[in-house]
Amino acid sequence: MKARVTVTLKRGVLDPQGKAIGNALHGLGFPQVGEVRAGKVIELDLAETDHEKARAAVEEMCRKLLANLVVEDYAIEIA
Amino acid sequence: MKARVTVTLKRGVLDPQGKAIGNALHGLGFPQVGEVRAGKVIELDLAETDHEKARAAVEEMCRKLLANLVVEDYAIEIA
Repeated sequence: MKARVTVTLKRGVLDPQGKAIGNALHGLGFPQVGEVRAGKVIELDLAETDHEKARAAVEEMCRKLLANLVVEDYAIEIA
Repeated sequence: MKARVTVTLKRGVLDPQGKAIGNALHGLGFPQVGEVRAGKVIELDLAETDHEKARAAVEEMCRKLLANLVVEDYAIEIA
């Protein structure tokens, strides 16, 4: 079973990496670009066949390691 | 219009960040975790109303800046 975790900064948290990407895109001739936010994606192979158990385990991984809940949100997709 | 770009390392390219995350998860008591791959996600606000034009512009951004096509793949979602 595969899981994909997307970790993004919460709304309102400054994102200097996203800002730098936005500035670079403007410099490259993409004036249509507005706000840019950068985040992480983590793909996991899980030795687990139960969808609900897999999701619960990945939730726990997010809380314990993958996301900093003070400033980051996470989204989990199980496939 | 919003676009989301997911940049991941190509299969076969070593991923030390993913390996480190996998080791940390094993250490935290998640033995069911197999391979872990880490990547980036970039969310863009675009001042563009045409879906096809938006996708073409984001494709060009990926080739020029967002992804290193030698070792990385990218996927684009337009919403």
